[in-house]
Amino acid sequence: MPEIHTTRRDALRQRLAEAELAALLVTDLRNIRYLTGFTGSNAALLVTGSEGGTVFCTDGRYTAQAEAEVPELRRMIERPSATALVGHARRVLARGGAGGVGDVVGFESDHVSVEQHATLADAAGEITLRRAPGLTEALRERKDETEVAALRQACAAADRALADLLEHGGLRPGRTEREVARELENRMAEHGAQATAFPSIVAAGANSAVPHHRPTAAVLAKGDFVKLDFGAVVDGYHSDMTRTVVLGEPAQWQREVYELVSRAQAAGAAAVRPGRELAEVDRAARDVIAAAGYGERFPHGLGHGVGLDVHEAPSLAATAVGTLSACMAVTVEPGVYLAGRGGVRIEDTLVVREGTPELLTLSTKELVVA
Amino acid sequence: MPEIHTTRRDALRQRLAEAELAALLVTDLRNIRYLTGFTGSNAALLVTGSEGGTVFCTDGRYTAQAEAEVPELRRMIERPSATALVGHARRVLARGGAGGVGDVVGFESDHVSVEQHATLADAAGEITLRRAPGLTEALRERKDETEVAALRQACAAADRALADLLEHGGLRPGRTEREVARELENRMAEHGAQATAFPSIVAAGANSAVPHHRPTAAVLAKGDFVKLDFGAVVDGYHSDMTRTVVLGEPAQWQREVYELVSRAQAAGAAAVRPGRELAEVDRAARDVIAAAGYGERFPHGLGHGVGLDVHEAPSLAATAVGTLSACMAVTVEPGVYLAGRGGVRIEDTLVVREGTPELLTLSTKELVVA
Repeated sequence: MPEIHTTRRDALRQRLAEAELAALLVTDLRNIRYLTGFTGSNAALLVTGSEGGTVFCTDGRYTAQAEAEVPELRRMIERPSATALVGHARRVLARGGAGGVGDVVGFESDHVSVEQHATLADAAGEITLRRAPGLTEALRERKDETEVAALRQACAAADRALADLLEHGGLRPGRTEREVARELENRMAEHGAQATAFPSIVAAGANSAVPHHRPTAAVLAKGDFVKLDFGAVVDGYHSDMTRTVVLGEPAQWQREVYELVSRAQAAGAAAVRPGRELAEVDRAARDVIAAAGYGERFPHGLGHGVGLDVHEAPSLAATAVGTLSACMAVTVEPGVYLAGRGGVRIEDTLVVREGTPELLTLSTKELVVA
Repeated sequence: MPEIHTTRRDALRQRLAEAELAALLVTDLRNIRYLTGFTGSNAALLVTGSEGGTVFCTDGRYTAQAEAEVPELRRMIERPSATALVGHARRVLARGGAGGVGDVVGFESDHVSVEQHATLADAAGEITLRRAPGLTEALRERKDETEVAALRQACAAADRALADLLEHGGLRPGRTEREVARELENRMAEHGAQATAFPSIVAAGANSAVPHHRPTAAVLAKGDFVKLDFGAVVDGYHSDMTRTVVLGEPAQWQREVYELVSRAQAAGAAAVRPGRELAEVDRAARDVIAAAGYGERFPHGLGHGVGLDVHEAPSLAATAVGTLSACMAVTVEPGVYLAGRGGVRIEDTLVVREGTPELLTLSTKELVVA
């Protein structure tokens, strides 16, 4: 789909003009994928004011792949690619040929390290490199329908994997956390996942009280909470879902904690509306948990944007600044963690829409007894 | 094993003294794991001239994990952690209590972005932040025996997975690249892999001519080269191995290309000795391929260091500067890629030893006919 990438580059050019940049050097691979469709592991992109002046660069491992994935752009094969493009910008801007404004090239100062910047500044010579963080990320916050379709598929793969796992008795006393993680990941692959979105979290019993527990050889036991936080990748887009299941009849404290987190999650999701302050969405869920006296047991933000990165802007947190817009994709994932006993987190991926958000993760949020 | 981490921090302190730094702010998670054993996804570490002055910082998700993994260090819980530690350094150094030299704090300028540096510089106030790239990475180049043991296990998991795959007929016409990748990864997990080292490469037929091809729904066919590049993670350490198999009786050109790459690989491995120039090791293999007229078909470096990162220093490439030392772990992975037909890469992970290197990836390098 070269058209979608052309559209995105045109949107970026608006930002360049507003920022008074002749060009932007894009070095973050997710941003490059967003702007070009290139999926390799090394590349740089110089977006100038015109499509004709825009140049893509990668190294010799990816010559054929670049021809196939980025046919519409001028291509260079050189390593290191970012330095090569700065050299190119220097030559072109010295001739006044960029079709942009002046000799100022923006760089992704939120991705470029201090050392790398020193190298690029050397290559820049008489042209100016200017900090230009977050330009492409800002475009990426609001998903186009191509992106939502990929997110929907990724979420569906995770939903189906969980349904299969439960249906085939995959969550039962005696299995290890690692076996369960492996099965979830295999089932996601069967349902179209091209990769896992992040190392799956499977946390049983007291381990479920560790927010980001990594699966171990710990054995699932009757009475355990089992927290499952996992996701699939489809066409580069990540799903992210958490469900907490109980093995056998739940104890009273388990019902109470589950019900509390469930109410907080619903309150957070209900607050997901265009124009809503990010911190306000976090507060909508947090207030429910705090009112029950568990505020200290919810030690992380409510959620985050999700797309080409599993964690991207916007952040739904108490300290976040900004508002939600239609077509943003975010997670809503409150949790309550009782050290030594167990914890519950319930997480959905949602797309902000006018009115009610579109729910992409469709697995039930009722307490599942496995 | 807190002792090993104490030993590593002491080695780093030597470097601090040499670099005339009062302290080093460590923000790269691999470096933090190396120096402390912490395995979470957010942390920072301030290493000062004394163990007592050294402070570890993470956020609320990891309070319990930090207590368990880093019991011997003073701990702070604050987010953002790096900024918090710079604030701490400022308070301590203003009192002259760091036990180091002056008020200069090094930061990992090869990992810290230009934006992040601006934030840290704000927090630093009157103390000086100085670029200090690669200090911990330099220590990490030479592996201690704890690390070699983990690498050995990771390589063994990959070896066993490949043996199982072949033994059970997992490489046969009709399967897709993705199915094969999935099976390799599952079999690595069965043999103790805690994760896959990187997205596995399974490339059949003409796809094998793409050096870094990602597995697709392409179907394996009789006569194909199938290139398998995959690895396991054990205790944070990565294995990396490539083997190229042929499905059915090899054609003459396949035998020739395979034999050429095999000779180049052996020549490269034979050059892996303490004191050898990195570029010279690359050349040892590259000369074999160039002499056969295929120099242009080997468009990447010969290899790289491997450890807590799957790609780390040193680089074995034509442009690399430096020499090998005993206890470095490196890959040797020449390839020849014939666009539209197929390609061969053969890759081992080796530990530099006095005399012959220690081979960690033990799968046969004879041409396997599956």
